[in-house]
Amino acid sequence: MMAKKMLPKTHGNTDSGTKIPIGRNVFICPMPVTIIGTHLNDRPNFLTVGWVTRANVDPPMIAVCINKSNASVDGIIMHKTFSVNFPSADLIEETDYCGLVSGKDKDKSKIFDVFYGELKNAPMIKNCPITLECRLTEAIDLPTNFLFIGEIEGAYADESSFSDGKPDIEEINPLLLTMPDNSYWQIGEYLGHACKIGRYLKT
Amino acid sequence: MMAKKMLPKTHGNTDSGTKIPIGRNVFICPMPVTIIGTHLNDRPNFLTVGWVTRANVDPPMIAVCINKSNASVDGIIMHKTFSVNFPSADLIEETDYCGLVSGKDKDKSKIFDVFYGELKNAPMIKNCPITLECRLTEAIDLPTNFLFIGEIEGAYADESSFSDGKPDIEEINPLLLTMPDNSYWQIGEYLGHACKIGRYLKT
Repeated sequence: MMAKKMLPKTHGNTDSGTKIPIGRNVFICPMPVTIIGTHLNDRPNFLTVGWVTRANVDPPMIAVCINKSNASVDGIIMHKTFSVNFPSADLIEETDYCGLVSGKDKDKSKIFDVFYGELKNAPMIKNCPITLECRLTEAIDLPTNFLFIGEIEGAYADESSFSDGKPDIEEINPLLLTMPDNSYWQIGEYLGHACKIGRYLKT
Repeated sequence: MMAKKMLPKTHGNTDSGTKIPIGRNVFICPMPVTIIGTHLNDRPNFLTVGWVTRANVDPPMIAVCINKSNASVDGIIMHKTFSVNFPSADLIEETDYCGLVSGKDKDKSKIFDVFYGELKNAPMIKNCPITLECRLTEAIDLPTNFLFIGEIEGAYADESSFSDGKPDIEEINPLLLTMPDNSYWQIGEYLGHACKIGRYLKT
Protein backbone atom coordinates (compact mmCIF):
# COMPACT_ATOMS: atom_id res chain seq x y z
CA MET A 1 0.00 0.00 0.00
CA MET A 2 1.25 3.45 -0.85
CA ALA A 3 1.88 5.99 1.87
CA LYS A 4 -1.17 7.82 3.14
CA LYS A 5 -1.00 11.48 2.28
CA MET A 6 -1.25 13.85 5.20
CA LEU A 7 -4.58 15.62 4.98
CA PRO A 8 -4.52 19.38 4.93
CA LYS A 9 -5.62 21.07 8.11
CA THR A 10 -8.27 23.11 6.35
CA HIS A 11 -11.01 21.68 4.19
CA GLY A 12 -13.19 23.15 1.50
CA ASN A 13 -11.15 26.30 1.39
CA THR A 14 -9.85 26.03 -2.14
CA ASP A 15 -10.10 29.10 -4.34
CA SER A 16 -13.78 29.93 -4.65
CA GLY A 17 -13.10 33.26 -6.30
CA THR A 18 -13.54 34.15 -9.95
CA LYS A 19 -15.12 31.49 -12.13
CA ILE A 20 -14.52 31.56 -15.85
CA PRO A 21 -16.84 29.97 -18.44
CA ILE A 22 -14.93 27.24 -20.30
CA GLY A 23 -17.38 26.37 -23.07
CA ARG A 24 -19.57 23.29 -23.11
CA ASN A 25 -17.32 20.59 -24.54
CA VAL A 26 -15.74 19.70 -21.20
CA PHE A 27 -14.47 16.23 -20.38
CA ILE A 28 -14.57 13.99 -17.34
CA CYS A 29 -11.44 14.79 -15.33
CA PRO A 30 -9.78 12.34 -15.54
CA MET A 31 -11.13 9.47 -17.65
CA PRO A 32 -10.28 5.81 -17.15
CA VAL A 33 -8.72 4.21 -20.21
CA THR A 34 -10.28 1.02 -21.55
CA ILE A 35 -9.92 -1.04 -24.70
CA ILE A 36 -13.21 -2.31 -26.11
CA GLY A 37 -13.01 -5.70 -27.81
CA THR A 38 -15.40 -6.71 -30.59
CA HIS A 39 -15.51 -9.04 -33.56
CA LEU A 40 -15.33 -7.54 -37.03
CA ASN A 41 -15.00 -9.60 -40.19
CA ASP A 42 -14.59 -12.74 -38.08
CA ARG A 43 -11.56 -11.41 -36.25
CA PRO A 44 -10.95 -9.50 -33.02
CA ASN A 45 -10.94 -5.71 -33.19
CA PHE A 46 -9.93 -3.28 -30.45
CA LEU A 47 -10.84 0.36 -29.83
CA THR A 48 -9.51 2.60 -27.06
CA VAL A 49 -12.37 4.26 -25.17
CA GLY A 50 -12.36 6.65 -22.21
CA TRP A 51 -16.12 7.13 -22.12
CA VAL A 52 -17.19 4.24 -19.94
CA THR A 53 -18.92 3.83 -16.57
CA ARG A 54 -20.69 1.29 -14.42
CA ALA A 55 -24.42 1.77 -15.00
CA ASN A 56 -26.37 -0.59 -12.74
CA VAL A 57 -25.66 -2.34 -9.43
CA ASP A 58 -27.67 -5.55 -9.80
CA PRO A 59 -27.33 -7.09 -12.31
CA PRO A 60 -23.91 -5.52 -12.86
CA MET A 61 -24.11 -3.36 -15.96
CA ILE A 62 -21.76 -1.06 -17.77
CA ALA A 63 -22.23 1.82 -20.23
CA VAL A 64 -19.82 2.46 -23.10
CA CYS A 65 -20.20 5.51 -25.37
CA ILE A 66 -18.68 5.23 -28.84
CA ASN A 67 -18.70 7.63 -31.77
CA LYS A 68 -20.83 6.29 -34.61
CA SER A 69 -17.94 6.60 -37.07
CA ASN A 70 -16.06 3.77 -35.34
CA ALA A 71 -16.06 0.26 -36.80
CA SER A 72 -16.58 -1.19 -33.30
CA VAL A 73 -20.16 0.11 -33.37
CA ASP A 74 -20.95 -2.37 -36.16
CA GLY A 75 -19.33 -5.22 -34.25
CA ILE A 76 -21.30 -4.54 -31.08
CA ILE A 77 -24.63 -4.16 -32.86
CA MET A 78 -24.06 -7.24 -35.01
CA HIS A 79 -22.94 -9.65 -32.26
CA LYS A 80 -24.57 -8.03 -29.20
CA THR A 81 -21.43 -8.66 -27.17
CA PHE A 82 -18.26 -6.74 -26.35
CA SER A 83 -15.37 -6.84 -23.92
CA VAL A 84 -13.95 -4.09 -21.68
CA ASN A 85 -10.22 -4.38 -21.00
CA PHE A 86 -8.17 -2.26 -18.58
CA PRO A 87 -4.62 -1.84 -19.86
CA SER A 88 -1.63 -1.25 -17.58
CA ALA A 89 0.59 1.75 -18.15
CA ASP A 90 3.17 -0.45 -19.88
CA LEU A 91 0.65 -1.00 -22.69
CA ILE A 92 0.44 2.74 -23.35
CA GLU A 93 1.68 2.56 -26.95
CA GLU A 94 -0.55 -0.33 -28.03
CA THR A 95 -3.47 1.32 -26.25
CA ASP A 96 -2.88 4.62 -28.00
CA TYR A 97 -2.51 2.87 -31.34
CA CYS A 98 -5.94 1.23 -30.92
CA GLY A 99 -7.45 4.71 -30.71
CA LEU A 100 -5.46 6.05 -33.66
CA VAL A 101 -6.32 3.63 -36.44
CA SER A 102 -9.69 2.32 -37.55
CA GLY A 103 -10.63 -1.34 -37.74
CA LYS A 104 -12.03 -0.43 -41.16
CA ASP A 105 -8.50 0.21 -42.43
CA LYS A 106 -6.22 -1.93 -40.26
CA ASP A 107 -6.26 -5.44 -38.84
CA LYS A 108 -5.78 -4.89 -35.11
CA SER A 109 -6.36 -8.54 -34.20
CA LYS A 110 -2.67 -9.37 -33.75
CA ILE A 111 -1.68 -6.57 -31.39
CA PHE A 112 -2.59 -8.52 -28.25
CA ASP A 113 -2.88 -12.11 -27.11
CA VAL A 114 -6.59 -12.88 -27.01
CA PHE A 115 -8.76 -15.17 -24.89
CA TYR A 116 -12.47 -15.80 -24.52
CA GLY A 117 -14.78 -16.46 -21.59
CA GLU A 118 -18.40 -17.54 -21.88
CA LEU A 119 -19.38 -15.22 -24.70
CA LYS A 120 -18.45 -15.65 -28.32
CA ASN A 121 -17.41 -12.50 -30.16
CA ALA A 122 -16.17 -10.72 -27.00
CA PRO A 123 -12.40 -11.09 -27.39
CA MET A 124 -10.50 -10.24 -24.20
CA ILE A 125 -6.88 -9.12 -23.97
CA LYS A 126 -4.56 -11.48 -22.09
CA ASN A 127 -2.03 -8.67 -21.64
CA CYS A 128 -4.55 -6.62 -19.63
CA PRO A 129 -4.75 -7.28 -15.87
CA ILE A 130 -8.57 -6.92 -15.74
CA THR A 131 -11.03 -7.83 -18.47
CA LEU A 132 -14.83 -8.00 -18.62
CA GLU A 133 -17.09 -9.77 -21.10
CA CYS A 134 -20.45 -8.07 -21.63
CA ARG A 135 -23.76 -8.84 -23.30
CA LEU A 136 -25.46 -5.88 -24.96
CA THR A 137 -28.82 -5.09 -23.37
CA GLU A 138 -29.60 -1.69 -24.87
CA ALA A 139 -28.21 0.67 -27.53
CA ILE A 140 -29.18 4.29 -26.96
CA ASP A 141 -28.99 6.24 -30.22
CA LEU A 142 -27.58 9.70 -29.40
CA PRO A 143 -26.80 12.34 -32.07
CA THR A 144 -23.14 11.46 -32.69
CA ASN A 145 -22.59 8.46 -30.40
CA PHE A 146 -24.12 5.19 -29.38
CA LEU A 147 -24.45 4.64 -25.64
CA PHE A 148 -24.21 0.88 -25.28
CA ILE A 149 -25.48 -0.67 -22.05
CA GLY A 150 -24.19 -4.16 -21.35
CA GLU A 151 -24.54 -6.70 -18.57
CA ILE A 152 -21.21 -7.95 -17.22
CA GLU A 153 -21.39 -11.72 -17.76
CA GLY A 154 -17.90 -12.51 -16.57
CA ALA A 155 -14.69 -10.85 -15.43
CA TYR A 156 -11.12 -12.08 -15.25
CA ALA A 157 -7.89 -10.89 -13.68
CA ASP A 158 -4.25 -11.80 -13.44
CA GLU A 159 -3.65 -13.61 -10.16
CA SER A 160 -1.22 -10.90 -9.13
CA SER A 161 -3.77 -8.12 -9.74
CA PHE A 162 -6.41 -9.26 -7.28
CA SER A 163 -6.23 -10.37 -3.69
CA ASP A 164 -9.21 -11.02 -1.39
CA GLY A 165 -11.53 -10.05 -4.22
CA LYS A 166 -10.05 -6.56 -4.39
CA PRO A 167 -7.93 -4.91 -7.05
CA ASP A 168 -4.25 -4.29 -6.31
CA ILE A 169 -4.00 -0.89 -7.91
CA GLU A 170 -0.22 -0.68 -7.84
CA GLU A 171 -0.02 -4.00 -9.65
CA ILE A 172 -2.74 -3.06 -12.15
CA ASN A 173 -1.17 0.37 -12.75
CA PRO A 174 -4.09 1.64 -14.87
CA LEU A 175 -3.97 4.41 -17.46
CA LEU A 176 -5.87 7.68 -17.12
CA LEU A 177 -6.67 10.25 -19.81
CA THR A 178 -7.40 13.96 -19.81
CA MET A 179 -8.80 15.90 -22.75
CA PRO A 180 -8.51 18.16 -24.74
CA ASP A 181 -4.85 18.22 -23.68
CA ASN A 182 -4.72 14.53 -24.75
CA SER A 183 -2.54 13.40 -21.86
CA TYR A 184 -2.08 9.99 -20.32
CA TRP A 185 -1.47 9.79 -16.58
CA GLN A 186 -0.58 7.18 -14.01
CA ILE A 187 -2.52 6.76 -10.78
CA GLY A 188 -0.83 8.37 -7.79
CA GLU A 189 -0.88 8.27 -4.01
CA TYR A 190 -3.47 6.61 -1.80
CA LEU A 191 -5.46 9.35 -0.07
CA GLY A 192 -7.92 7.64 2.24
CA HIS A 193 -10.75 5.20 2.78
CA ALA A 194 -14.05 5.95 1.03
CA CYS A 195 -17.17 5.76 3.20
CA LYS A 196 -14.97 6.40 6.23
CA ILE A 197 -12.81 9.50 5.87
CA GLY A 198 -15.86 11.79 5.84
CA ARG A 199 -17.54 10.25 8.85
CA TYR A 200 -16.44 12.86 11.35
CA LEU A 201 -18.53 15.43 9.48
CA LYS A 202 -21.66 13.47 10.42
CA THR A 203 -21.52 14.73 14.00
CA MET B 1 4.17 19.73 -15.98
CA MET B 2 5.24 16.59 -14.19
CA ALA B 3 8.26 14.64 -15.35
CA LYS B 4 7.67 12.31 -18.26
CA LYS B 5 8.08 8.70 -17.24
CA MET B 6 10.61 6.72 -19.22
CA LEU B 7 8.75 4.18 -21.28
CA PRO B 8 9.72 0.55 -20.85
CA LYS B 9 11.71 -0.95 -23.71
CA THR B 10 9.29 -3.83 -24.14
CA HIS B 11 5.59 -3.46 -24.80
CA GLY B 12 2.62 -5.74 -24.39
CA ASN B 13 4.64 -8.27 -22.46
CA THR B 14 2.81 -8.05 -19.16
CA ASP B 15 1.83 -11.32 -17.51
CA SER B 16 -0.56 -13.07 -19.84
CA GLY B 17 -0.51 -16.27 -17.84
CA THR B 18 -3.22 -17.64 -15.58
CA LYS B 19 -6.48 -15.72 -15.55
CA ILE B 20 -8.80 -16.05 -12.58
CA PRO B 21 -12.55 -15.40 -12.70
CA ILE B 22 -13.36 -12.51 -10.35
CA GLY B 23 -17.16 -12.57 -10.33
CA ARG B 24 -19.35 -10.16 -12.25
CA ASN B 25 -19.61 -7.15 -9.93
CA VAL B 26 -16.41 -5.54 -11.14
CA PHE B 27 -15.85 -1.79 -11.16
CA ILE B 28 -14.25 0.67 -13.52
CA CYS B 29 -10.60 0.89 -12.53
CA PRO B 30 -10.30 3.64 -11.43
CA MET B 31 -13.40 5.84 -11.31
CA PRO B 32 -13.40 9.64 -11.43
CA VAL B 33 -15.03 11.22 -8.38
CA THR B 34 -17.79 13.76 -8.98
CA ILE B 35 -20.35 15.49 -6.81
CA ILE B 36 -23.79 15.74 -8.40
CA GLY B 37 -25.75 18.86 -7.46
CA THR B 38 -29.54 18.92 -7.45
CA HIS B 39 -32.35 20.82 -5.77
CA LEU B 40 -34.39 19.03 -3.12
CA ASN B 41 -37.01 20.74 -0.97
CA ASP B 42 -35.97 24.10 -2.46
CA ARG B 43 -32.37 23.79 -1.34
CA PRO B 44 -29.16 22.44 -2.86
CA ASN B 45 -28.34 18.79 -2.32
CA PHE B 46 -25.09 17.01 -3.17
CA LEU B 47 -24.33 13.35 -3.85
CA THR B 48 -20.91 11.81 -4.51
CA VAL B 49 -20.96 9.72 -7.69
CA GLY B 50 -18.20 7.73 -9.40
CA TRP B 51 -20.43 6.37 -12.17
CA VAL B 52 -20.23 9.11 -14.73
CA THR B 53 -18.98 9.45 -18.32
CA ARG B 54 -19.17 11.69 -21.34
CA ALA B 55 -21.86 10.24 -23.62
CA ASN B 56 -22.04 12.28 -26.84
CA VAL B 57 -19.62 14.51 -28.74
CA ASP B 58 -21.97 17.06 -30.31
CA PRO B 59 -23.95 18.35 -28.55
CA PRO B 60 -21.79 17.63 -25.51
CA MET B 61 -23.64 15.15 -23.32
CA ILE B 62 -22.88 13.32 -20.12
CA ALA B 63 -24.26 10.17 -18.48
CA VAL B 64 -24.66 9.82 -14.71
CA CYS B 65 -25.80 6.55 -13.13
CA ILE B 66 -27.42 6.82 -9.70
CA ASN B 67 -28.96 4.17 -7.47
CA LYS B 68 -32.74 4.63 -7.24
CA SER B 69 -32.61 4.78 -3.44
CA ASN B 70 -30.84 8.16 -3.56
CA ALA B 71 -32.76 11.36 -2.95
CA SER B 72 -30.91 13.02 -5.85
CA VAL B 73 -32.92 10.89 -8.27
CA ASP B 74 -36.08 12.76 -7.24
CA GLY B 75 -34.36 16.13 -7.66
CA ILE B 76 -33.13 15.32 -11.17
CA ILE B 77 -36.46 13.93 -12.35
CA MET B 78 -38.42 16.81 -10.82
CA HIS B 79 -36.30 19.69 -12.14
CA LYS B 80 -34.71 18.06 -15.20
CA THR B 81 -31.39 19.69 -14.36
CA PHE B 82 -28.29 18.72 -12.39
CA SER B 83 -24.70 19.79 -11.96
CA VAL B 84 -21.49 17.75 -12.12
CA ASN B 85 -18.67 19.04 -9.90
CA PHE B 86 -15.07 17.77 -9.82
CA PRO B 87 -13.64 18.12 -6.30
CA SER B 88 -9.94 18.54 -5.61
CA ALA B 89 -8.18 16.13 -3.28
CA ASP B 90 -8.32 18.70 -0.47
CA LEU B 91 -12.12 18.29 -0.46
CA ILE B 92 -11.81 14.56 0.25
CA GLU B 93 -13.68 14.65 3.55
CA GLU B 94 -16.59 16.77 2.34
CA THR B 95 -16.77 14.64 -0.80
CA ASP B 96 -16.86 11.42 1.17
CA TYR B 97 -19.49 12.84 3.51
CA CYS B 98 -21.78 13.60 0.55
CA GLY B 99 -21.73 9.90 -0.31
CA LEU B 100 -22.27 8.78 3.28
CA VAL B 101 -25.45 10.59 4.29
CA SER B 102 -28.74 10.89 2.42
CA GLY B 103 -30.39 14.15 1.47
CA LYS B 104 -33.53 12.55 2.86
CA ASP B 105 -32.03 12.67 6.37
CA LYS B 106 -29.55 15.53 6.32
CA ASP B 107 -29.41 19.06 4.94
CA LYS B 108 -26.24 19.05 2.81
CA SER B 109 -26.86 22.53 1.37
CA LYS B 110 -24.38 24.29 3.69
CA ILE B 111 -21.32 22.11 3.10
CA PHE B 112 -20.10 24.12 0.11
CA ASP B 113 -20.35 27.63 -1.27
CA VAL B 114 -22.84 27.45 -4.12
CA PHE B 115 -23.24 29.35 -7.39
CA TYR B 116 -25.51 29.09 -10.42
CA GLY B 117 -25.01 29.47 -14.15
CA GLU B 118 -27.80 29.57 -16.72
CA LEU B 119 -29.92 26.78 -15.27
CA LYS B 120 -32.07 27.03 -12.19
CA ASN B 121 -31.94 24.05 -9.84
CA ALA B 122 -28.42 23.00 -10.89
CA PRO B 123 -26.38 24.24 -7.91
CA MET B 124 -22.64 24.25 -8.59
CA ILE B 125 -19.88 24.11 -5.98
CA LYS B 126 -17.60 27.15 -5.83
CA ASN B 127 -14.97 25.13 -3.98
CA CYS B 128 -14.61 22.75 -6.94
CA PRO B 129 -12.16 23.76 -9.70
CA ILE B 130 -14.41 22.48 -12.54
CA THR B 131 -18.21 22.43 -12.58
CA LEU B 132 -20.79 21.64 -15.26
CA GLU B 133 -24.47 22.51 -15.43
CA CYS B 134 -26.59 19.98 -17.32
CA ARG B 135 -30.10 19.71 -18.69
CA LEU B 136 -31.66 16.25 -18.49
CA THR B 137 -32.47 14.85 -21.92
CA GLU B 138 -33.22 11.19 -21.12
CA ALA B 139 -33.68 8.99 -18.04
CA ILE B 140 -32.99 5.31 -18.73
CA ASP B 141 -34.76 3.13 -16.16
CA LEU B 142 -32.40 0.25 -15.31
CA PRO B 143 -33.20 -2.40 -12.64
CA THR B 144 -31.53 -0.71 -9.65
CA ASN B 145 -30.25 2.56 -11.13
CA PHE B 146 -31.29 5.44 -13.32
CA LEU B 147 -28.91 6.30 -16.13
CA PHE B 148 -29.43 10.02 -16.62
CA ILE B 149 -28.28 11.56 -19.88
CA GLY B 150 -27.82 15.31 -19.79
CA GLU B 151 -26.64 17.96 -22.20
CA ILE B 152 -23.83 20.16 -20.86
CA GLU B 153 -25.27 23.67 -21.04
CA GLY B 154 -22.38 25.45 -19.38
CA ALA B 155 -19.08 24.78 -17.64
CA TYR B 156 -16.97 26.87 -15.29
CA ALA B 157 -13.46 26.69 -13.88
CA ASP B 158 -11.20 28.50 -11.48
CA GLU B 159 -8.86 30.74 -13.47
CA SER B 160 -5.88 28.85 -12.08
CA SER B 161 -7.27 25.47 -13.24
CA PHE B 162 -7.44 26.19 -16.96
CA SER B 163 -5.01 27.70 -19.39
CA ASP B 164 -5.39 27.85 -23.17
CA GLY B 165 -8.70 26.00 -22.84
CA LYS B 166 -7.01 23.00 -21.27
CA PRO B 167 -7.19 21.64 -17.72
CA ASP B 168 -4.14 22.04 -15.48
CA ILE B 169 -4.31 18.64 -13.85
CA GLU B 170 -1.79 19.41 -11.11
CA GLU B 171 -3.81 22.45 -10.11
CA ILE B 172 -7.14 20.60 -10.29
CA ASN B 173 -5.73 17.62 -8.37
CA PRO B 174 -8.80 15.44 -8.91
CA LEU B 175 -9.93 12.51 -6.78
CA LEU B 176 -10.09 8.94 -8.02
CA LEU B 177 -11.92 5.97 -6.51
CA THR B 178 -11.48 2.20 -6.62
CA MET B 179 -14.03 -0.33 -5.44
CA PRO B 180 -14.72 -2.63 -3.66
CA ASP B 181 -11.61 -1.69 -1.69
CA ASN B 182 -13.19 1.77 -1.27
CA SER B 183 -9.99 3.72 -1.76
CA TYR B 184 -9.42 7.31 -2.84
CA TRP B 185 -6.36 8.06 -4.95
CA GLN B 186 -4.57 11.07 -6.32
CA ILE B 187 -3.58 11.36 -9.97
CA GLY B 188 0.08 10.55 -10.59
CA GLU B 189 2.77 11.06 -13.22
CA TYR B 190 2.32 12.26 -16.77
CA LEU B 191 2.98 9.31 -19.09
CA GLY B 192 2.65 10.61 -22.63
CA HIS B 193 0.64 12.30 -25.33
CA ALA B 194 -2.55 10.57 -26.45
CA CYS B 195 -3.02 10.22 -30.23
CA LYS B 196 0.75 10.50 -30.61
CA ILE B 197 2.64 8.00 -28.45
CA GLY B 198 1.24 5.02 -30.38
CA ARG B 199 1.97 6.42 -33.84
CA TYR B 200 5.16 4.47 -34.44
CA LEU B 201 3.10 1.25 -34.40
CA LYS B 202 1.32 2.46 -37.53
CA THR B 203 4.33 1.71 -39.67
